Amino acid sequence: MASMVTFLAKTPIPTTPFPNTLKSDPFPRSRLSFPLFAAPRRAARAIRSRRIACGLIEPDEGQLVNLVVPAGPAREGRRREAAALPKVRLSRVDLEWVHVLSEGWASPLQGFMRESEFLQALHFNSLRLPDGSVVNMSIPIVLAIDDAQKKAIGNQRKVALVDANNKLVAILSDIEIYKHNKEERIARTWGTTAEGLPYIKEAIKNAGNWLIGGDLEVIEPIKYNDGLDQYRLSPVELREEFLRRNADAVFAFQLRNPVHNGHALLMTDTRKRLLEMGYRNPILLLHPLGGFTKADDVPLSWRMKQHEKVLEEGVLDPETTVVAIFPSPMHYAGPTEVQWHAKSRINAGANFYIVGRDPAGMKHPKEDRDLYDADHGKKVLSMAPGLEKLNILPFKVAAYNVKKQKMDFFDPYRPQDFVFISGTKMRDLAQNRKDPPDGFMCPGGWKVLVEYYETLLETVSNGAVAHFPGARKLGAFKQQ
Amino acid sequence: MASMVTFLAKTPIPTTPFPNTLKSDPFPRSRLSFPLFAAPRRAARAIRSRRIACGLIEPDEGQLVNLVVPAGPAREGRRREAAALPKVRLSRVDLEWVHVLSEGWASPLQGFMRESEFLQALHFNSLRLPDGSVVNMSIPIVLAIDDAQKKAIGNQRKVALVDANNKLVAILSDIEIYKHNKEERIARTWGTTAEGLPYIKEAIKNAGNWLIGGDLEVIEPIKYNDGLDQYRLSPVELREEFLRRNADAVFAFQLRNPVHNGHALLMTDTRKRLLEMGYRNPILLLHPLGGFTKADDVPLSWRMKQHEKVLEEGVLDPETTVVAIFPSPMHYAGPTEVQWHAKSRINAGANFYIVGRDPAGMKHPKEDRDLYDADHGKKVLSMAPGLEKLNILPFKVAAYNVKKQKMDFFDPYRPQDFVFISGTKMRDLAQNRKDPPDGFMCPGGWKVLVEYYETLLETVSNGAVAHFPGARKLGAFKQQ
Repeated sequence: MASMVTFLAKTPIPTTPFPNTLKSDPFPRSRLSFPLFAAPRRAARAIRSRRIACGLIEPDEGQLVNLVVPAGPAREGRRREAAALPKVRLSRVDLEWVHVLSEGWASPLQGFMRESEFLQALHFNSLRLPDGSVVNMSIPIVLAIDDAQKKAIGNQRKVALVDANNKLVAILSDIEIYKHNKEERIARTWGTTAEGLPYIKEAIKNAGNWLIGGDLEVIEPIKYNDGLDQYRLSPVELREEFLRRNADAVFAFQLRNPVHNGHALLMTDTRKRLLEMGYRNPILLLHPLGGFTKADDVPLSWRMKQHEKVLEEGVLDPETTVVAIFPSPMHYAGPTEVQWHAKSRINAGANFYIVGRDPAGMKHPKEDRDLYDADHGKKVLSMAPGLEKLNILPFKVAAYNVKKQKMDFFDPYRPQDFVFISGTKMRDLAQNRKDPPDGFMCPGGWKVLVEYYETLLETVSNGAVAHFPGARKLGAFKQQ
Repeated sequence: MASMVTFLAKTPIPTTPFPNTLKSDPFPRSRLSFPLFAAPRRAARAIRSRRIACGLIEPDEGQLVNLVVPAGPAREGRRREAAALPKVRLSRVDLEWVHVLSEGWASPLQGFMRESEFLQALHFNSLRLPDGSVVNMSIPIVLAIDDAQKKAIGNQRKVALVDANNKLVAILSDIEIYKHNKEERIARTWGTTAEGLPYIKEAIKNAGNWLIGGDLEVIEPIKYNDGLDQYRLSPVELREEFLRRNADAVFAFQLRNPVHNGHALLMTDTRKRLLEMGYRNPILLLHPLGGFTKADDVPLSWRMKQHEKVLEEGVLDPETTVVAIFPSPMHYAGPTEVQWHAKSRINAGANFYIVGRDPAGMKHPKEDRDLYDADHGKKVLSMAPGLEKLNILPFKVAAYNVKKQKMDFFDPYRPQDFVFISGTKMRDLAQNRKDPPDGFMCPGGWKVLVEYYETLLETVSNGAVAHFPGARKLGAFKQQ
């Protein structure tokens, strides 16, 4: 991402929304040496945690889980141990969950869910801790295995998790194997069992009939080698960055779409409101989701280019914005998933969460309607167990004001002044190389989108999509 | 129920499992005068509550809700008011929910759920109270209306609820009308959307596309005039009965099937264990479900006859057993519903709850398997929010010991000594007038079952089932 460096070189301020690209990088590029962790030693385990004692919101259970084995003898020991263990091959989505778990986004989860955690997530969207307190946990984070794998594991208490190339990724200990009732899992997570939901097609439908839970020890930090790893800041790294900027409030904006000026208006307005509330330095965490997304979403690499332009062209203030990638895959599970999106950002230090209309929503795969009521996400989030400490900021509706020729908060008393530009409309314009109305999106950001849709059209005209049904999806996935 | 009176006449003890049939009835038959309630006067509302300050477990939120308008001027005022209100016709199941709500089984719910309560039930199986505490509430208790009813209600803030004969039942105030997404409700409540679930066929599939929530004022106590009303004790009445018996522990047994000697063994054993734990007088609440059940369950009236024989023949001790009818309809929603069964019994004063294998479970309507994992009910119940104060007693497995010729706790080290007699097997025997093994069930109780299946065979041979698909179901329902 050469252009990103250019952008940063032009930035005169010491803080930057892409901190890991700075020469005077406040974080070690590699987390091999774990400088941010004081390591309490637990017998026979490499799990290390650190109480975050600072002005930021406490992570769930007061501690951020870190499941990466320290480099050195411990790591080498795990490698030797793993050689003799039964192997479980991880899919790309499984690997994303290993990433999520390893950095403590799901704190206090210590690994893939055992049955008691799975049942609590499904039925209560929360986990009860040993002290009786409750943390939010709405999405099952589970690992499926098939009959043959279950048989191969037999009575052994540990398994090695390997990637598609058989490279060791992690060890799962004190394992528990239990039934994977896919129908029940899907019904309780999505509120429908209709065929065609993207995550289910990708990660559940063809998965095994058993789930394996246990304590996770990840051999080394998860990397994707896609040119974007430096933006994948862990919750610990994000907290350090917020502290470095002297943030006294952090407001998170989860997104999986390009940023238009309506989003920017909202984020700018949120900061203004927080300043009015008495905060001195509210920092925005602009936090694009980086894991699995459905085929027709804009791939992460293009979204990152687009976000860069938004900051480069001053639509968002680099001094008060941190851009980083959230490594979770996307469920598109509406009110259930928005809780996960919020809970994980608490762990990253955010005490304010901006929630839009129909968060994590999509069209019903079989009926001509949205899958979820547009207001349910906001309502469920505001009542969710374990999220009481988070301040929920409902999304104000922004639309294009034709009189002012810019994005503006919708005024229900002057509806004739406003035009709504949907994602579909935006895509149609970009695909046909038509310009959006002035002030809808910064020119550089728009240009990125037009370029993306051009590459897509080229792929289509080359027959990659038409002739190989899986190609486009795979391509989109690889780009992330 | 003449035989019941005979049974009671033979009972020499002052306490009785059917307290309402005693001549020296400790409860007024009619609750018109509300002797059990001290009535704090709330402006413009007839809702009266009373803090139960006794040795029994506290009801949820410390108070039992009572939604029945007191007899006299208040009630007459409501009748006059209702005449001018839009009408909503209640189904039989709706009426059962009015009954449940009116007596405080769902305390602190004050009426049919508004959307915020509905969403919390669906997503969290619990409700957060204004003070931040949490009560369990796993089943949506909702009232559906159709488009025409919604239109007729318009902007009015109250509606009158009427029965099938247009008789006024209740007033619903401060109403809120919201969408009834049946698919999502079903998926999140049952963990499946497979066609053929009994409650859905009965009460959801053909219900309206809107839900109406609000505060309920029930004009007079709900009665069924089926000869069983005297067994329908409210939570307040049950608490009074437990106090009268000087109970220092109450253990509830929810059932919708005939009682065999395995059940009896379990209940007797439970009392023994509670005595060993130091309780002086544990009382059993034998609590058959009295609302909607599926067509092939034994109807309530026959079950009550059977339960009566079990006590009459001394299989359960009348002195330490209270038999009463739980007015709720049955969802057959496994781990979700068992929470409701337990929570409502807390409100009735039970601090111990016996949970069996696969509670509220049934066969999958489309696949050859049980709908729920047999252990999930127990596990979910033990982790459920708002049920922390309840002691869960897992059901020990009882089976027929062929050596001892009686029901016995199953011994996994001597499996050859045991025979499991399933419900289906029991039904086959009774239908074919064959006797079960000695000691499986008391002879009088078995005779009741044989009689019931005879009436069913007569109905079938008369063509009522064969020729009119709805008849058997309707018949079964009416018998309750």
